[in-house]
Amino acid sequence: MQTDNATDFLSTLRREAREAPESGIVEVVNHGRTRPGLIPLWVGEGDLATPSFISEAATRSLAAGETFYTWQRGVPELREALARYIGRVYGRTCSHERFFVTGSGMQALQIAVRMLAGDGDEVIVPTPGWPNFAAAIGIAGARPVAVPMSLQPSGWFLDLDRLTAAITPRTKAIVVNSPSNPTGWTATQDELAAILAIARKHGLWIIADEIYGRFVYDGSVRAPSFRDVMEERDRILFVQTFSKNWAMTGWRIGWLEADPALGDVIENLIQYSTSGVATFMQRAGIAALDHGEGFVAHQIERARRGRDIVCRGLAATGRVRFAEPAGAFYLFFSVDGVADTRRLAIRLVDEANVGLAPGTAFGEGGERYLRLCFARKAEDLEEAVRRLAGVLGRAAA
Amino acid sequence: MQTDNATDFLSTLRREAREAPESGIVEVVNHGRTRPGLIPLWVGEGDLATPSFISEAATRSLAAGETFYTWQRGVPELREALARYIGRVYGRTCSHERFFVTGSGMQALQIAVRMLAGDGDEVIVPTPGWPNFAAAIGIAGARPVAVPMSLQPSGWFLDLDRLTAAITPRTKAIVVNSPSNPTGWTATQDELAAILAIARKHGLWIIADEIYGRFVYDGSVRAPSFRDVMEERDRILFVQTFSKNWAMTGWRIGWLEADPALGDVIENLIQYSTSGVATFMQRAGIAALDHGEGFVAHQIERARRGRDIVCRGLAATGRVRFAEPAGAFYLFFSVDGVADTRRLAIRLVDEANVGLAPGTAFGEGGERYLRLCFARKAEDLEEAVRRLAGVLGRAAA
Repeated sequence: MQTDNATDFLSTLRREAREAPESGIVEVVNHGRTRPGLIPLWVGEGDLATPSFISEAATRSLAAGETFYTWQRGVPELREALARYIGRVYGRTCSHERFFVTGSGMQALQIAVRMLAGDGDEVIVPTPGWPNFAAAIGIAGARPVAVPMSLQPSGWFLDLDRLTAAITPRTKAIVVNSPSNPTGWTATQDELAAILAIARKHGLWIIADEIYGRFVYDGSVRAPSFRDVMEERDRILFVQTFSKNWAMTGWRIGWLEADPALGDVIENLIQYSTSGVATFMQRAGIAALDHGEGFVAHQIERARRGRDIVCRGLAATGRVRFAEPAGAFYLFFSVDGVADTRRLAIRLVDEANVGLAPGTAFGEGGERYLRLCFARKAEDLEEAVRRLAGVLGRAAA
Repeated sequence: MQTDNATDFLSTLRREAREAPESGIVEVVNHGRTRPGLIPLWVGEGDLATPSFISEAATRSLAAGETFYTWQRGVPELREALARYIGRVYGRTCSHERFFVTGSGMQALQIAVRMLAGDGDEVIVPTPGWPNFAAAIGIAGARPVAVPMSLQPSGWFLDLDRLTAAITPRTKAIVVNSPSNPTGWTATQDELAAILAIARKHGLWIIADEIYGRFVYDGSVRAPSFRDVMEERDRILFVQTFSKNWAMTGWRIGWLEADPALGDVIENLIQYSTSGVATFMQRAGIAALDHGEGFVAHQIERARRGRDIVCRGLAATGRVRFAEPAGAFYLFFSVDGVADTRRLAIRLVDEANVGLAPGTAFGEGGERYLRLCFARKAEDLEEAVRRLAGVLGRAAA
């Protein structure tokens, strides 16, 4: 009965909804979520809870009764705090009218896609890439077009000729995620300028995901950004989140940065999807932006140590290959002789009690890799490396 | 420059996004939001902040560090609390697997629409109706098909022959909002059974918005529901919210109730739109469901008094027409001699310092009406009625 009923129900749904892929990461998480002692390095979040100066800003707002409907674009104070933050970190003054508060970076991406692409359209996504890019594009009825990057001796590489060759009359936008989840690829300013030139030439939008822009390991305050090379008229939508910099993954608050001319359209898309973000959440966002630099620096320093531990430890197994990531907080590595990392990720849960994300989740070119999140305390990472080394030593067996 | 730039930007966006209508309610709110002393009866929220037993559940969770990613379908404890609540209020035991936590009732609606309708499809929406129904359908690329209801001496009336006549081979679903925002129409159990029979016969889904189901004024615990007439295999999606019953409008938390066979699809649509709801929000939801009945009763009693005040007071002007609402917390009234209530709503802000929603926002058949939210303390409503009476006495002048 249940099966008949399920089939009957499902067959009446829209194809795009029915065929939306399960995140290959979620599949492994659901397999191992409840295992005692598991070290979870599978999703993009660290082990630190949100700092109390941020949570308490929300608590004070709640206690003050800020529980009513609010501005669909975000409370003015948060939009102004965003303009201050971007001005400070990126050295460009900008208007608060460029900022639109969303219920997660994911929602910022969803809205960006909805603005640009639907049935019959194409959006270019370099891969390996965060699976939600392709999925959000597909649910919108458009087609994600993968441009596989390659692992060179010098690191991950985006071939701009290959990018250009992927452009068709149906292409609407290019997703650029730098620093990249999962590879750690971090575009130089010259590379960003070259991508922008291609977009300009073909009249395409850029969806810029620079959410890991603060997580770089060369001593810079932040990675190169499209803000360094763009002009006012360039068609760029920045999708952003509070999740990573301020350990707010569970909150679901982010923002979209766009030309103010798009304000009415963005406001409507917010209105008709979630109708805004809780004021008390937004107060927390203001605290994070205005008083969070010390915490950001602490997190980056921790990630730098984590990066050293996992790079050194896994290299020592002699069984893995990777490029040391210049940005973000993931190690993306392949295991000699292993082609199916989905099975290996499940096995690593069962045998090493370590949770990793299978590279199969990240699209073309990621199949032979595993993604490990190193935004975590050193002891856990050292233990995880020990456990992984034990199993990887017999991985192909 | 700005204008050229704006035109240039906008012309490159998807038509469905560009043409999404501004909510006619938001337009008036933006006109009057900052006026001192204005009595705001324009949006669907009362004047009570969220009760502290609910807010404090969130605060405790935040203080305990529940700030990490969580289950995409909602934490199991909240899904179980939802099953208990529905079981208690509707007298039907059901599995927690029917419940999916969303970032607002609006998001539940968005996901329901995305599951059912896209380019080339039609969805039937009785009007006057909440503007977000038609807008969400339009943004998804589908066409909202209005079936205007009529104001009879016995109250608002949905003509089922007219509903049936609106069905075409492209129709995928019928939206049924009972009790209705804005009219207060509350379907009888027989009417719901008749609508369900039509849906069954034509293989259509029903999107049931019963969010005002507790706000009825005949002494019942709740309005008739599709739950009273449905069978297990019926194609019904319930969109729901914490906003109204528990004064949580600003929180943005709701739920979708559906057959568990749809679970994977719904989980994916959540994953690729907002990726879940904050755990600390969900703890507040559990407190509301398990300990909120006293507060719900208090709100309904207040709304009953508010309804009496505004019905009596506006009827006494001799200038207005309405059906006394059986459910929800709005008075939907026309003013003799006034055809353009958009202009009148702006004028009432300017001259009466009272915020009402123009009926033009609610689609076909609503143009001559104004919507007044009476979920508010008696003194405010009495003062609002006095002010409105003064201006309406010369409304057509």
